Amino acid sequence: MTKTLHNDFYSTQSQGHYHLHALGEFALEEGEVIPNLQLAYATYGMLNESRDNVILIPTWFSGSHQTWELAYIAPGRALDPEKYFIVAVSQIGNGLSSSPHNVGGDIAMSRFPRITIGDDVRAQEALLRDVFEIDTLALVVGGSMGAQQTYEWAVRFPDKVKRAAPIAGTAQVTPHNVLLTRVLMDAITSDPGYADGDYASHEDVAQGLRRHADLWAVIGFSTEFWKSEFWRTIEIDGVKHTNMQDFHRACNQVPYELMDPNSLLSMAWKWQHADVARHTDGDLAAALARITARTFVLPIDEDMFFPPRDCIAEQRLIPNSEVRLLHSVAGHSGLGAFEQSFRDEVDSALNELLALDV
Amino acid sequence: MTKTLHNDFYSTQSQGHYHLHALGEFALEEGEVIPNLQLAYATYGMLNESRDNVILIPTWFSGSHQTWELAYIAPGRALDPEKYFIVAVSQIGNGLSSSPHNVGGDIAMSRFPRITIGDDVRAQEALLRDVFEIDTLALVVGGSMGAQQTYEWAVRFPDKVKRAAPIAGTAQVTPHNVLLTRVLMDAITSDPGYADGDYASHEDVAQGLRRHADLWAVIGFSTEFWKSEFWRTIEIDGVKHTNMQDFHRACNQVPYELMDPNSLLSMAWKWQHADVARHTDGDLAAALARITARTFVLPIDEDMFFPPRDCIAEQRLIPNSEVRLLHSVAGHSGLGAFEQSFRDEVDSALNELLALDV
Repeated sequence: MTKTLHNDFYSTQSQGHYHLHALGEFALEEGEVIPNLQLAYATYGMLNESRDNVILIPTWFSGSHQTWELAYIAPGRALDPEKYFIVAVSQIGNGLSSSPHNVGGDIAMSRFPRITIGDDVRAQEALLRDVFEIDTLALVVGGSMGAQQTYEWAVRFPDKVKRAAPIAGTAQVTPHNVLLTRVLMDAITSDPGYADGDYASHEDVAQGLRRHADLWAVIGFSTEFWKSEFWRTIEIDGVKHTNMQDFHRACNQVPYELMDPNSLLSMAWKWQHADVARHTDGDLAAALARITARTFVLPIDEDMFFPPRDCIAEQRLIPNSEVRLLHSVAGHSGLGAFEQSFRDEVDSALNELLALDV
Repeated sequence: MTKTLHNDFYSTQSQGHYHLHALGEFALEEGEVIPNLQLAYATYGMLNESRDNVILIPTWFSGSHQTWELAYIAPGRALDPEKYFIVAVSQIGNGLSSSPHNVGGDIAMSRFPRITIGDDVRAQEALLRDVFEIDTLALVVGGSMGAQQTYEWAVRFPDKVKRAAPIAGTAQVTPHNVLLTRVLMDAITSDPGYADGDYASHEDVAQGLRRHADLWAVIGFSTEFWKSEFWRTIEIDGVKHTNMQDFHRACNQVPYELMDPNSLLSMAWKWQHADVARHTDGDLAAALARITARTFVLPIDEDMFFPPRDCIAEQRLIPNSEVRLLHSVAGHSGLGAFEQSFRDEVDSALNELLALDV
């Protein structure tokens, strides 16, 4: 297998402008190697002379820098490019950074190695040093798998992270999420068109990708999101939908059907194995006790699979941490920042955190 | 297609003793006919002379009379066979009553007609009249799809139902449940072995049935059930498991792999279309206002897909009704009554309801 697949979804036309940085040979925690790891990233604002105005944003499952750019980064917002140098880095395997469909060579497609959250964080740390000579981060903020990476940063590089804001995610994958990610993966791999990962086109796996998307409708959004018909207020590609199925099609099915199946599987496996206690022989409390960053833990009240109590249980193990509960009827998918009130809550929490002396 | 399939799972060896009553030709709400509808039922206790000590239990998705018999019906309990004549009736399509794999003839297998909750309730009403000359019910109590049938009884036959206790279910399917049931059905139908419903054996659909079971692990149990490892305390076939996957295998995968795929699909479609507002041109409030039964609405606090607020929103539309919130870390699957505290709560609520004069 040496093939690469072209997939428009990961182009700058679809995702907005981004850079690629090549890190060269990169040894992975699970023992394999990526010959020339490339990370996709986008920056906003200017690095100041003292290089201390940096905010890092690692991405969530199936996401890129784009949602952050559209929904969270703007002058006057907490993530203000007029004050901060903001770097959003695509996680490995997300389709923009090195991923099964774009690497080619011996690790193409089904042979793409297993990636861990720790690999992402080490690669991001190298990227920030190599390209920008950045040593410390004013803030690391990320949602969902971005929260997993945020925790990994704070545990692995406590001296480099001044503030951390994990949103709607945990430092250690929960048992429920282990089961959930398997279901998400099986929806794809059970499609005969998946062909053990060596399909000719992601379109061959359309049925599996659709079933994967259907799961997100059931668990990504909250029961109340559907009951309240909040979706009627959400504009997708300029259109508000009047029928639940049409909304679901536009919001979930269409985007997932455009993505690369192996890419989703790579990220899902990574999510399933996220655990800062890998650093401390399985002792979660010991791992979280390493954190020196001022930390705001930000669960979403209606989240069906990173419920607030799971986030708060970890927060209690983190020195100098506080909880700021976010509210979104959209549940976990509220990370899409559909509600102005949600944006305001995130901004308020991040402003408060950024104002803290550290 | 005239075939019937043998399936040991639905035998009296597996399910415990039950009766079959033939109702003859039965016209369905969706327009088709079952030539000789058979209902499977089990009874506990004795019908008194005034025929006013009857408790009816309709069954939930994939269930039969058996769980009720093992976990809820006993002398000294609320469902006391020394005081009441308890009739547990298997819903149509559950594998014991007339179902795709056992009817044969023109409606066998993939041609089995669509069944509604209303069909079940009309058939149960006929069964109780034909076999026992029962006109009124002291109580109808059911969980999940059994709650859907309980509501249908109370709305359709207000003069016959003195008390109603819907547990962990709603009178009108919620939008989230419409999406959830589709996911549950697609897990089965996407298996190539399903063969559009005309498989040679349920074993041909083992992969689809397993994926269906995996969904129940993620949504049937609560996140906290897995986090707290409550499953370690649950005995299945005499065994307590020490590994999450082993428990899931024994509790979810093995039973579902024994079931008939078309049977599960028939019930899921029925669940997806449950709606007492079919009687009132879509006006849910008008339908629930018809209820004259003293009604206790019994949601489970950790239920991920019949959350208490959905149940309570309906309760507010029911005259003479009250809420009694049940607590189970197992979530919706807490209906399996794993916790003594849960059994006590159910008994307490049912005792209170049964003591009310009506």
